[in-house]
Amino acid sequence: MNKFLLFEEIKKKESFLCVGLDTDIQKIPEFLLDTSDPIFYFNQKIIDATAAYTIAYKPNLAFYESNGLAGWNSLEKTVHYIRERYPDIFLIADAKRGDIGNTSAMYARTFFETYHFDAVTIAPYMGEDSVTPFLGYPDKWVILLALTSNKGAYDFQFMEDLQHEKLFQKVLRISQHWAGSDNMMYVVGATKAEELKGIREIVPEHFLLVPGVGAQGGSLSEVARYGMNDQCGLLVNSSRAILYASKASDFAEKAGEAAAEVQSEMKNLLSERGLI
Amino acid sequence: MNKFLLFEEIKKKESFLCVGLDTDIQKIPEFLLDTSDPIFYFNQKIIDATAAYTIAYKPNLAFYESNGLAGWNSLEKTVHYIRERYPDIFLIADAKRGDIGNTSAMYARTFFETYHFDAVTIAPYMGEDSVTPFLGYPDKWVILLALTSNKGAYDFQFMEDLQHEKLFQKVLRISQHWAGSDNMMYVVGATKAEELKGIREIVPEHFLLVPGVGAQGGSLSEVARYGMNDQCGLLVNSSRAILYASKASDFAEKAGEAAAEVQSEMKNLLSERGLI
Repeated sequence: MNKFLLFEEIKKKESFLCVGLDTDIQKIPEFLLDTSDPIFYFNQKIIDATAAYTIAYKPNLAFYESNGLAGWNSLEKTVHYIRERYPDIFLIADAKRGDIGNTSAMYARTFFETYHFDAVTIAPYMGEDSVTPFLGYPDKWVILLALTSNKGAYDFQFMEDLQHEKLFQKVLRISQHWAGSDNMMYVVGATKAEELKGIREIVPEHFLLVPGVGAQGGSLSEVARYGMNDQCGLLVNSSRAILYASKASDFAEKAGEAAAEVQSEMKNLLSERGLI
Repeated sequence: MNKFLLFEEIKKKESFLCVGLDTDIQKIPEFLLDTSDPIFYFNQKIIDATAAYTIAYKPNLAFYESNGLAGWNSLEKTVHYIRERYPDIFLIADAKRGDIGNTSAMYARTFFETYHFDAVTIAPYMGEDSVTPFLGYPDKWVILLALTSNKGAYDFQFMEDLQHEKLFQKVLRISQHWAGSDNMMYVVGATKAEELKGIREIVPEHFLLVPGVGAQGGSLSEVARYGMNDQCGLLVNSSRAILYASKASDFAEKAGEAAAEVQSEMKNLLSERGLI
């Protein structure tokens, strides 16, 4: 999906919500464990309940890999389900990969050819040739980690060089030589919303994938205030607050309500900005 | 496997060779494509031919993931095969993972519980809480990226802070607060051998996993000169130069010869250092 179509979807659904499918077998309602593939069953119900309010789904690969072959099977079925029922959804593999060139090329093949994702999250530590193999696919996206939402972000990402440029700023600046805003997005944690203003000076045009609203404590209105641009430029992720809104038989209904609530707030923010 | 046993194996086999199982369906001998699982068949033959000279195997996850479910199946069979036939082999998942705490915990479960690897490679960008979930397993190891062998290493890893400390040096220094040399190793590319002397000043006791000898152009004797410590402290990886030593029916035999040649050089280096 290209940038134009992504913005069209955002205007149509009046939402910039990404639902993180961090589906944890230990957290889903217990009565689902009797089904043949509880993870897929749970995902299906969550997707059906939330798709009307959602621009993107973001399966977190760790949660599938940890179940071995069965987990990869659940992921494959989830991806097919979304692709068939909701073809206009933007599909992100939250994989945080990145390796030497020939290996990154293999990962690109995995996510863009074997699984037909639109985008994959990539760690920047290994530099240009670990990222560029993902950029050879038209209308596919790299979502590069810039400033993450976790506490450990302070260990290295704020390191400052002799010109007082921080590591995450350097990642934002240098990676623009590898691809423009039609193929690259950046991860910027909602818990670091105060940094968004400065980040928008470095990457005014790019979409930002913003985790950390909800369970991790970030504020949606602050993210929008500092991060929204004239093509929205934001995909804000929520995982746990939607997936586990209820652990009872009404889990899907409650997930839908939680997504609708976020979407309603997003609609106001888009409207205030004059984008819808 | 703990550090003591690892060094015992090194002395017993007179080798510090790690064979990277970067098994590429497009590079293995064509006649294998008729078997039901060519990747696993190839791995089996390579393992049997090289195990006598090898301390560690390092499947590169990208090469398995790119084949979807079938690839994960090949990986699982390969891991079981090594575990059953060669229980004293050190088994590394070259996965370069790293994510927020609850997600890293999932990845740890994948590699240490679902697949029974001894070690997993981790990218440091997201800091402490992305790494520590892997450290809760006795005798299991994190192998943290410090200075990688690729060209892109120069994009960020050599960034210098106000105290003239480089990013890769900071990673080496700070991560020692998270774990000692019994649970942590570092990736240091052989193509940056001139940096090994300085790296040994920061991490004198740690094992280093050194890729980049062979196809990527690094020199084994230089790596040993600057990187070897009194418990060897090195696992030197070779992938393509061993796996694809021949594309004919003698591929396994030639792989064994290539591994034996490296082992023989390693034996001399261990002997010169007085370790065997």
